[in-house]
Amino acid sequence: MCDTCGCGDPEIVPVHVHESLLANNDRQASHNREHFQESGVLALNIMGSPGCGKTALLEATAVQLGGHRLRAMSGDLATDNDGARLRAAGIPSLTITTGTACHLDARLVHHALHDLDWQAAEYLFIENVGNLVCPAIYDLGQAANVVVLSVTEGEDKPLKYPVMFQRADLVLFTKIDLLPYLPGIKLANYIAALSRVNPNPRYISLSTVAGQGLDQWVAWLAERKLRIAKSVA
Amino acid sequence: MCDTCGCGDPEIVPVHVHESLLANNDRQASHNREHFQESGVLALNIMGSPGCGKTALLEATAVQLGGHRLRAMSGDLATDNDGARLRAAGIPSLTITTGTACHLDARLVHHALHDLDWQAAEYLFIENVGNLVCPAIYDLGQAANVVVLSVTEGEDKPLKYPVMFQRADLVLFTKIDLLPYLPGIKLANYIAALSRVNPNPRYISLSTVAGQGLDQWVAWLAERKLRIAKSVA
Repeated sequence: MCDTCGCGDPEIVPVHVHESLLANNDRQASHNREHFQESGVLALNIMGSPGCGKTALLEATAVQLGGHRLRAMSGDLATDNDGARLRAAGIPSLTITTGTACHLDARLVHHALHDLDWQAAEYLFIENVGNLVCPAIYDLGQAANVVVLSVTEGEDKPLKYPVMFQRADLVLFTKIDLLPYLPGIKLANYIAALSRVNPNPRYISLSTVAGQGLDQWVAWLAERKLRIAKSVA
Repeated sequence: MCDTCGCGDPEIVPVHVHESLLANNDRQASHNREHFQESGVLALNIMGSPGCGKTALLEATAVQLGGHRLRAMSGDLATDNDGARLRAAGIPSLTITTGTACHLDARLVHHALHDLDWQAAEYLFIENVGNLVCPAIYDLGQAANVVVLSVTEGEDKPLKYPVMFQRADLVLFTKIDLLPYLPGIKLANYIAALSRVNPNPRYISLSTVAGQGLDQWVAWLAERKLRIAKSVA
């Protein structure tokens, strides 16, 4: 729920209030980013619709990166379900219960850092609230944005939620094992729609159920991790 | 995008601003509701995640209710895609382009009414922005809330987005033709999760691809339409 949300109504919530809100968030995000970079932690903001497969992705990632130090925090309006799934998968994780908020912000992430031994991590996955709109504009201090889009959601989603896909460093097309059962739906059309809003997109298609595409995802993670290590050195 | 969104940050957007926002919206929604009731129009707020099947539902409804007078408005951040699909399906429809807003509000709907011959309608479908959070708290003047949840989204969604499901007059579990391909997913678990947040839920499971459940949906529509007709008489 978003009972504090003045989205789209500048007549009521004045512009200077919005600007101040985002400026404050950006300041806190820069502070978070410094923390992550100094400690050589690759922090990723994992975003996507409810049920697109964010948690399943991280469960599969835990198996793939068994020898590495992973940490996670997951945002949800209610329940500790995702946190519990991630801990069961072997990732020390905590839940940020947002209550009324439809997205994470840099302050919520910073508070949560106090309860997680994040400095021990090589990879810190920040699983955002399921939402293709609001999370896109709140910087958390991450090194990269990963946007997860299930192929069950419809080929035109990048066009209908352009900001999210413009700001994606990587798009993961998930649940591709279901493509044979989705009449008329083609991965090529998803890629074409993504290319229209993001001229040079990085994307991987994968299925955690069928084990497809995970090697490419892990390679992308390793490559991004290397950049952080170099900036620390 | 939601660059005007103060969600979850009462330190920055003061409480009286939020209260004023929602009070103004409720006032406009009451005005819309009077319009709909005086004209005997059944207005429905159709909500759900991106890609849950809201537009496909309305396309199938157009076939089922071929002899009736249907109208629609659909909200999206960008594109006229849904409006175009609905018009192609024979429903006079317009698109409310929200730009930055993650939900429809009563004022946007009221403005849109000026461009649609809604008084001619028996049924007015208001297809909200794809989002399981923010649309739930903005009354539009509808007679009922219909929440669409695809069975690909995960069984715990009612628990994780409780406000949306608490306020649902009807929940439609869509894409049930995919259930045989979703390992371990059971419709009974969706229903159990819904029952935990909404003690007496109305729900229908359906598939527009397989043509299942549409007769129950059309019966529900007819029953709700009858209530409006009685209140006019």
